[in-house]
Amino acid sequence: MTQKILVLPGDGIGPEITAQASRVLAACQARGLDVEVEEALVGGSAYDAHGEPLPAATLEKARGADAILLGAVGGPKWDTIEDLAKRPEKGLLGLRKNLGLFGNLRPAILYPQLADASSLKPEVVSGLDIMIVRELTGGIYFGQPRGIEERDGERVGFNTYVYAESEIERIGRVAFEMARKRHKKLCSVDKANVLEVTILWREVMERLAPEYPDVELSHLYVDNAAMQLVRAPKQFDVIVTGNMFGDILSDAAAMLTGSIGMLPSASLNESGQGMYEPCHGSAPDIAGQNVANPLATILSVAMMLRYSLNEPVLAERIEAAVGRVLDDGLRTADIASAGTRTVSTTEMGDAVLAAF
Amino acid sequence: MTQKILVLPGDGIGPEITAQASRVLAACQARGLDVEVEEALVGGSAYDAHGEPLPAATLEKARGADAILLGAVGGPKWDTIEDLAKRPEKGLLGLRKNLGLFGNLRPAILYPQLADASSLKPEVVSGLDIMIVRELTGGIYFGQPRGIEERDGERVGFNTYVYAESEIERIGRVAFEMARKRHKKLCSVDKANVLEVTILWREVMERLAPEYPDVELSHLYVDNAAMQLVRAPKQFDVIVTGNMFGDILSDAAAMLTGSIGMLPSASLNESGQGMYEPCHGSAPDIAGQNVANPLATILSVAMMLRYSLNEPVLAERIEAAVGRVLDDGLRTADIASAGTRTVSTTEMGDAVLAAF
Ligand SMILES: CC(C)[C@H](C(=O)O)[C@@H](O)C(=O)O
Ligand SMILES: CC(C)[C@H](C(=O)O)[C@@H](O)C(=O)O
Repeated sequence: MTQKILVLPGDGIGPEITAQASRVLAACQARGLDVEVEEALVGGSAYDAHGEPLPAATLEKARGADAILLGAVGGPKWDTIEDLAKRPEKGLLGLRKNLGLFGNLRPAILYPQLADASSLKPEVVSGLDIMIVRELTGGIYFGQPRGIEERDGERVGFNTYVYAESEIERIGRVAFEMARKRHKKLCSVDKANVLEVTILWREVMERLAPEYPDVELSHLYVDNAAMQLVRAPKQFDVIVTGNMFGDILSDAAAMLTGSIGMLPSASLNESGQGMYEPCHGSAPDIAGQNVANPLATILSVAMMLRYSLNEPVLAERIEAAVGRVLDDGLRTADIASAGTRTVSTTEMGDAVLAAF
Repeated sequence: MTQKILVLPGDGIGPEITAQASRVLAACQARGLDVEVEEALVGGSAYDAHGEPLPAATLEKARGADAILLGAVGGPKWDTIEDLAKRPEKGLLGLRKNLGLFGNLRPAILYPQLADASSLKPEVVSGLDIMIVRELTGGIYFGQPRGIEERDGERVGFNTYVYAESEIERIGRVAFEMARKRHKKLCSVDKANVLEVTILWREVMERLAPEYPDVELSHLYVDNAAMQLVRAPKQFDVIVTGNMFGDILSDAAAMLTGSIGMLPSASLNESGQGMYEPCHGSAPDIAGQNVANPLATILSVAMMLRYSLNEPVLAERIEAAVGRVLDDGLRTADIASAGTRTVSTTEMGDAVLAAF
């Protein structure tokens, strides 16, 4: 049966990088992948065209898709929109929430070819391979009540950090299963010495543990986790945490590799439908210059093939092609170093296709 | 007039490290510092003695003190106390809240003698000198409502992230003033693309900016700030942020230096009363072994002399003494490296006193 893929280029460098990823998708089709590919608007570009960061038509197409490939959203152009609900980011958050994409997988992998790019000492990060499992549809991102209001003669801003047991349990299971497929170590990150919501988080993780006796569960407070990521990141295998802490820690972890332009991510719902996107942002400063790194987006296609389309062989082929291109010394500007050849976005796409 | 200092050794290595700091305080008295020093219990040790992490007698002494020197609180021994209000951490949080110690100053400084200790490449961190200004008596740490309760047949945990304009303004002023005394760059960290409370935060920072035209104000989202700290920490001068983000970022920043055992901190209220403590924790694993690093606590005495007791000359003398001891190659185990001499907690205290 033909599966449906929706490509959402988004803003900034989004259209350039998804264009290269779409070429790779087309190459997969040529090798027998049975998919139908559509495009739609999201984020600032959707706001410009329709006054909404997540137009109803886009959401409808997203619901009907088996998998979504997203570029990136946002940029200074839209940072002054008064109504927070109309900002590009809300397009992304709306997709996550409406599709129930609660399970966010963010790998932080150091490519041996790019070891120099890290700001950390080689011995601290060589061989780094962490998987961060971030809860994506709950926590303080979506908690009610929220807002800014007048109290006792001054304005007060407030948000609510909230998790129900069932939400914690389902992301916990994703993380335990992930650890099971990897090195069987799961570290749950919370602030249970201060926040009640994370006391419940820790309790639920502990309750799940006996069901996964092969997985070693540990806990860290979020401040300590941030420290340990900087100090000795290779101690981690899988990390599971809530939406806000996951946002912070996954970006820190990605940056340990020094090549955030290389890192894909997946956001999955209960039926295996997924949205795939690079970990990096929309980089408005270099948009339209054909210099952005398309590899994280191309590797997001590989994740899509693995997690949503059940095509592990094609996924590996893409990953191998990227590896070969790096071995050949080709680099976009963000990962360039002495002795390598700097190429454009489209040239990088060409090279991956040639190696595929 | 004689000023009063309260020493709160706390738990774990707390008593050992404050003992060395107290010797330095005594040396200051010998050089004319007019202070009266008392001790009291806080944290787990207070719980063991009185069933409360912050006994009324301790709080009363704290209120009457001009400055407080705290070791550290907490340890696995008390992690199983069911009632969160009785845990050692609540002693610390209670002191902060009751004394109104809203302004937390956390320097992340790389000591040139310890450059090797960092997990980051030398060129990325050499000369690092960041001051993190963390709001300490508000935000999600203290927001109401909070708790765990039954809703729709399952338990739900919740906390409230809340700031009033006046709270943001007063920590903003501390940060702007600090930037003014340093390199005149202030970066405010928020998540204004998602959280209303931090939209208000950003607004208030912007409103203050014209009053400090000599300070350059910038803003970063917290995920990006975590990334930038790993990628290129030297871009920062002063960072200001809320309680939770400050907890995470200040620990990450401290760890960039590789020598968290060296970093002091100050927590100030509106009248200049302050609590001073090392950035590191109670390290229960090495407690009682006379191996802990007392330098962060000794340097906390220097901060106390500078910020609460108006004795900048004595403060500099302590800092210079610590510098000389490091120059001489003396190291506690946590900062030991090839070619240095590993000394005990008390030997390190001896050495600082000898150099003072
Ligand atoms: C753009 C923003 C809303 C988003 C988030 O905070 O989740 C981004 O930082 C991410 O991590 O995907
Ligand atoms: C012990 C804990 C409550 C405390 C905090 O989270 O503030 C500590 O981590 C700190 O940063 O001083």
